[in-house]
Amino acid sequence: MPRNQQILLASRPEGEATASNFKLVTTDTPALRDGQVLVRHHYLSLDPYMRGRMSDAKSYAAPQALGEVMIGGTVGEVVESRHPKFAPGDKVVGMGGWQDYAVVDAAQPGVLSKVQAGDGPGQVPLSHYLGAAGMPGVTAWYGLVKIIEPKPGQTVTVSAASGAVGSAYGALAKARGCRVVGIAGGKEKCDYVVNDLGFDACIDYKQYTDAGSLSKALKAACPDGIHGHFENVGGMVLDAVLSRINAHGRIALCGMIAGYNGAPVPLTYPQLLLTQRIRLEGFIVSEHMEVWPEALKELVGLVASGKLRPRETVASGLAAAPEAFLGMLKGRNFGKQLVKLV
Amino acid sequence: MPRNQQILLASRPEGEATASNFKLVTTDTPALRDGQVLVRHHYLSLDPYMRGRMSDAKSYAAPQALGEVMIGGTVGEVVESRHPKFAPGDKVVGMGGWQDYAVVDAAQPGVLSKVQAGDGPGQVPLSHYLGAAGMPGVTAWYGLVKIIEPKPGQTVTVSAASGAVGSAYGALAKARGCRVVGIAGGKEKCDYVVNDLGFDACIDYKQYTDAGSLSKALKAACPDGIHGHFENVGGMVLDAVLSRINAHGRIALCGMIAGYNGAPVPLTYPQLLLTQRIRLEGFIVSEHMEVWPEALKELVGLVASGKLRPRETVASGLAAAPEAFLGMLKGRNFGKQLVKLV
Repeated sequence: MPRNQQILLASRPEGEATASNFKLVTTDTPALRDGQVLVRHHYLSLDPYMRGRMSDAKSYAAPQALGEVMIGGTVGEVVESRHPKFAPGDKVVGMGGWQDYAVVDAAQPGVLSKVQAGDGPGQVPLSHYLGAAGMPGVTAWYGLVKIIEPKPGQTVTVSAASGAVGSAYGALAKARGCRVVGIAGGKEKCDYVVNDLGFDACIDYKQYTDAGSLSKALKAACPDGIHGHFENVGGMVLDAVLSRINAHGRIALCGMIAGYNGAPVPLTYPQLLLTQRIRLEGFIVSEHMEVWPEALKELVGLVASGKLRPRETVASGLAAAPEAFLGMLKGRNFGKQLVKLV
Repeated sequence: MPRNQQILLASRPEGEATASNFKLVTTDTPALRDGQVLVRHHYLSLDPYMRGRMSDAKSYAAPQALGEVMIGGTVGEVVESRHPKFAPGDKVVGMGGWQDYAVVDAAQPGVLSKVQAGDGPGQVPLSHYLGAAGMPGVTAWYGLVKIIEPKPGQTVTVSAASGAVGSAYGALAKARGCRVVGIAGGKEKCDYVVNDLGFDACIDYKQYTDAGSLSKALKAACPDGIHGHFENVGGMVLDAVLSRINAHGRIALCGMIAGYNGAPVPLTYPQLLLTQRIRLEGFIVSEHMEVWPEALKELVGLVASGKLRPRETVASGLAAAPEAFLGMLKGRNFGKQLVKLV
């Protein structure tokens, strides 16, 4: 059996997460038992939710156990199988964690899914099953379709617009006839959001030092106000959006990355939720598995047809995962953050 | 025609509202035109929403115009009518404003409604059509039934529990088999909430100086956590409730009286809306007229059967309205705040 590199959670962050919270180890992969599959990971997904799991504060999921392999989505190839539904060479997506190989009990429903992947025209590259055609894409779909429920012609906004969720959101919103305005950090990301992702406009929040000035920029980009907003960040961005949201606006609250590293980030004017009669809903997509087939069908179609061309930032080798993860929490990635493992 | 006392909005508050923002004038009531009705007001309702109308900040309703009669709900008796559907002696409820008499264009739908009122057993006193059997009662009904949607056995909470909305909320929640826990200011109000209104428990927020200690008191009163919350106040109370709300909890956001007098009151931990996957909805009941018949039927039944015995604080004479209103904003009223005009 091959040797396996793994990254464990070594300690819980106090305030900002650091590289010292992680530990790289090498182990032997155990021999397979009946029903098990050995998967060689091609890509590991790095996502903001992982920061939440590193803490033991009350949240929607149990904290990541200390000394165990960090949780994470993976795509890869079956290299050995003792399960009748999987054969060597199958491309699979699962939650294999921060490691080169995973031994998976493939009998558990939903734990490992076969996917069709390819790099040709009309095909979906394997890595995209961790992004636009995976959890981030379905997350965008759920927030837009099930919470915001936009009508054609309405204006919808999204923070972290150049990221995996934001890019899918933009394509899904355009497919529904919406005006879609992104918020992202830096000119390069904003140019990409407009030119490559097809957003109608994108605001560089780094040009603004307070919610008031960001609010003015939103007013210019959203002359009809904001009908629906998808929040990945929180803090100043959410304050500014709330100041421009229309009556009966909807907010899909999916991430508050601004507050993940310790100090809470307050909402400055919650009164606007009342005066504008807003419906705000926090959600995590893993609680809504029933939408996956419908959502993935649309997302795979958008990717295969070239209407959704998500960008990726790819770190190389498992040992690079901690720094890539910490950089992503600071917005240093551009598009979906991955680690390439083969 | 009788002489009419009126209270006008003389100026907009800067920060806290004061008596100098109001002006009492006396005028002649004009002669009626066809379709008009002259109503003598018996009671004027004083409500927190009026504070919002005094400002010209962006809100769900246009600001109250300067120099005009303050807006307000009223019950009274028709004293003269040039409309075929109304006759002298009819008891009516409407939005007559802060004045002794109102000339009403009764042809406008919904502007004036006849009610059955009486002080005997099984009857509803006239004043209650401004409270439990009126706008505050329907407000409680909408938030509980349409937003919180509690199941029997679930725990629901409400701030300003001894007030007109809170008292109706308690009776409606008990009728649905819920555990209902109030939050109110002072021992006297809390005793009333439990002993007279039939809440399972009531927490005196004045005993706590911060959200953390209030949160501990909520934990003791809500051993199964909080499934749904109705917010009238905002600020520390909402912070504390959020710290105890269960996954997939619902929050009906109806008032944020803590922030009505100027400085905004932030929400300290908006991240909990995400981690607990909360659905929060701001609403004003006047946008949901479709529920009024169903809601009023239940509320009138609860009052007439003695299951809902709302308390009233009654000021005497129109000139007392400003001080009574300002006191209500500080929580000095006990139950529904009214002004008796006859």
